[in-house]
Amino acid sequence: MSEILTKGWAAYDEAANFKPITFKRAALKDDEILLKTLYCGICHSDIHAARNEWGVTKYPIVPGHEIVGEVVQVGKNVKEFEIGNKAGIGCLINSCGECEACLNSNEQFCSKGAVWTYNSVDYFNDNEITKGGYSNYIKVHKDFAINIPENAPLELIAPLFCAGITTYSPLKFSKVSKGMDVAIAGFGGLGVMAFKYAKAMGANVSVIARNDTKKQIALELGASNYYNDINNVDKRFDVIISTIPSKYDVLAYARVLKYGGEMAIVGLPPIDEKVSISLNALIRVSHKKIYGSLIGGIKETKEMLEFSLKHEIYPEVKIISAEDINKAYDDLLNNSSSFRYVIKFDE
Amino acid sequence: MSEILTKGWAAYDEAANFKPITFKRAALKDDEILLKTLYCGICHSDIHAARNEWGVTKYPIVPGHEIVGEVVQVGKNVKEFEIGNKAGIGCLINSCGECEACLNSNEQFCSKGAVWTYNSVDYFNDNEITKGGYSNYIKVHKDFAINIPENAPLELIAPLFCAGITTYSPLKFSKVSKGMDVAIAGFGGLGVMAFKYAKAMGANVSVIARNDTKKQIALELGASNYYNDINNVDKRFDVIISTIPSKYDVLAYARVLKYGGEMAIVGLPPIDEKVSISLNALIRVSHKKIYGSLIGGIKETKEMLEFSLKHEIYPEVKIISAEDINKAYDDLLNNSSSFRYVIKFDE
Repeated sequence: MSEILTKGWAAYDEAANFKPITFKRAALKDDEILLKTLYCGICHSDIHAARNEWGVTKYPIVPGHEIVGEVVQVGKNVKEFEIGNKAGIGCLINSCGECEACLNSNEQFCSKGAVWTYNSVDYFNDNEITKGGYSNYIKVHKDFAINIPENAPLELIAPLFCAGITTYSPLKFSKVSKGMDVAIAGFGGLGVMAFKYAKAMGANVSVIARNDTKKQIALELGASNYYNDINNVDKRFDVIISTIPSKYDVLAYARVLKYGGEMAIVGLPPIDEKVSISLNALIRVSHKKIYGSLIGGIKETKEMLEFSLKHEIYPEVKIISAEDINKAYDDLLNNSSSFRYVIKFDE
Repeated sequence: MSEILTKGWAAYDEAANFKPITFKRAALKDDEILLKTLYCGICHSDIHAARNEWGVTKYPIVPGHEIVGEVVQVGKNVKEFEIGNKAGIGCLINSCGECEACLNSNEQFCSKGAVWTYNSVDYFNDNEITKGGYSNYIKVHKDFAINIPENAPLELIAPLFCAGITTYSPLKFSKVSKGMDVAIAGFGGLGVMAFKYAKAMGANVSVIARNDTKKQIALELGASNYYNDINNVDKRFDVIISTIPSKYDVLAYARVLKYGGEMAIVGLPPIDEKVSISLNALIRVSHKKIYGSLIGGIKETKEMLEFSLKHEIYPEVKIISAEDINKAYDDLLNNSSSFRYVIKFDE
């Protein structure tokens, strides 16, 4: 087998100005599949990484972990995929497969370290630094590829592999079901996805945002209540999913949980804002559970896709060509939007 | 009915030097009972309050919220107690009785504000500032007094009304039961109580402390494991009860929970140490729930007493006379101990 010549788009420094790149991926292994990329969503994590805002970026970086592609090559141990199938890749392309987390399909917490789709050391492939879906070919361990049924709306599915699973996972973890009172805090792209899933699970879903700009969308989607200020909330919730990406008073939200209720944190404020929960204050917001939730494992990602297709839950997307990545980044940095940019690869 | 002349011990300023005080309590109301104090535990909260370490102390202050006494007078609506009965009082002597928290017997979170046993505005008694159990008579709303059966070991029971319920409540809230793996973090007075309850509930209980000074006690009590450093912990737990009263890395402990496990915070580090949980770090300790737990409601306090008596779970105590309060405070401020000072009232 020979190395895989790949064309993509890379950022070369913190200015995050994307330019074409040609690079080689290691030859396909027996338990890997190769995808020809069809669509790749632009996730806010891509922007953080491209700009080195988490301080760990290795340049040149090729981001992208919301990928839909067509299977063009399969390793000889692969029975799950055939050439011509459609498949998805999310934030992970491999993990040790042996630790407690992996055995429970929480591969994102692999104790040896998951192999992330980009900017990660791939210890199965000579420690090469992974390059993501802003590229025309990408390979993945067969167990980390998600089978996509024929006739699925591919361009809408791509963002599910990060934005979808990120919001679906805590709702399942907190056992959201019919009749429960759920609040979604923050109503950007993640918030809208969380809302749609919670609604499809049968919950009464309220939205807590910072102003009234998104009230109309929330009500059209069937929100039970819309609050433009946490201090106005007069209801109590079984579950709150916080997608808020900026500084806020976490306990002000936890306070509107019912006794024994649970608040999942999925939004990640910028590290330099140092958002934290005071232990002294936490004790006074007693019996209300707070937990973080980071994407989800592969088994649950498959379940999420099935659920999304069944209930037709997709993000709003804007399709762009790879040449427009820089323009999309500018727009995302300057505006808060509830749609997802999705890159369409032509060749 | 006439006002109740009471003798007690008060701190008059932040030096917290206790001296005798004589004061009047408002006349007994129809739904109140009056206790002649027999025993009152010295809780670390008493020290914080006496020294105004929370910044809200109204002097002179008479602390004490771990009280056992004999009923000497009952209001005309009281059917639950007779003169001569023994009864206990914990952190609360009254609350609105009408809000959601009160109706669910979480009176400590009364939305109108619970009436705390000391240093609190008693809005049922002309807004007098409550004075606690370091005094020979104390009155309480009948629904906030805990009936103590004959022949119970009164001096051992007093501390249960704060230290007992504080540790019992989160274990019940997290549904600790036979075969579960529980860790107690911090092994002072609260930690030992938490240990004994968890053990009596059938759990396998480990202790995480900061050194080996308490290893012997833990092993004698039947600890499954003893860790002198959180970084040495190789086990994973369903529930962790943290009684640590000083600065620490909360998430280092949460990390040793099992997937879906719960960590209750009951220990309160000094406010000026600003112990907090970073939201960015929390997301990386995913699916592990953290909550605060503040004492417990009256219904659960009764249940706790019954459980303690049945399983003979009591703290280690040292009986002192009221004249020795200052000496006890000095000792508690200078030493970490796992016993409780309990004041015996003679007259």
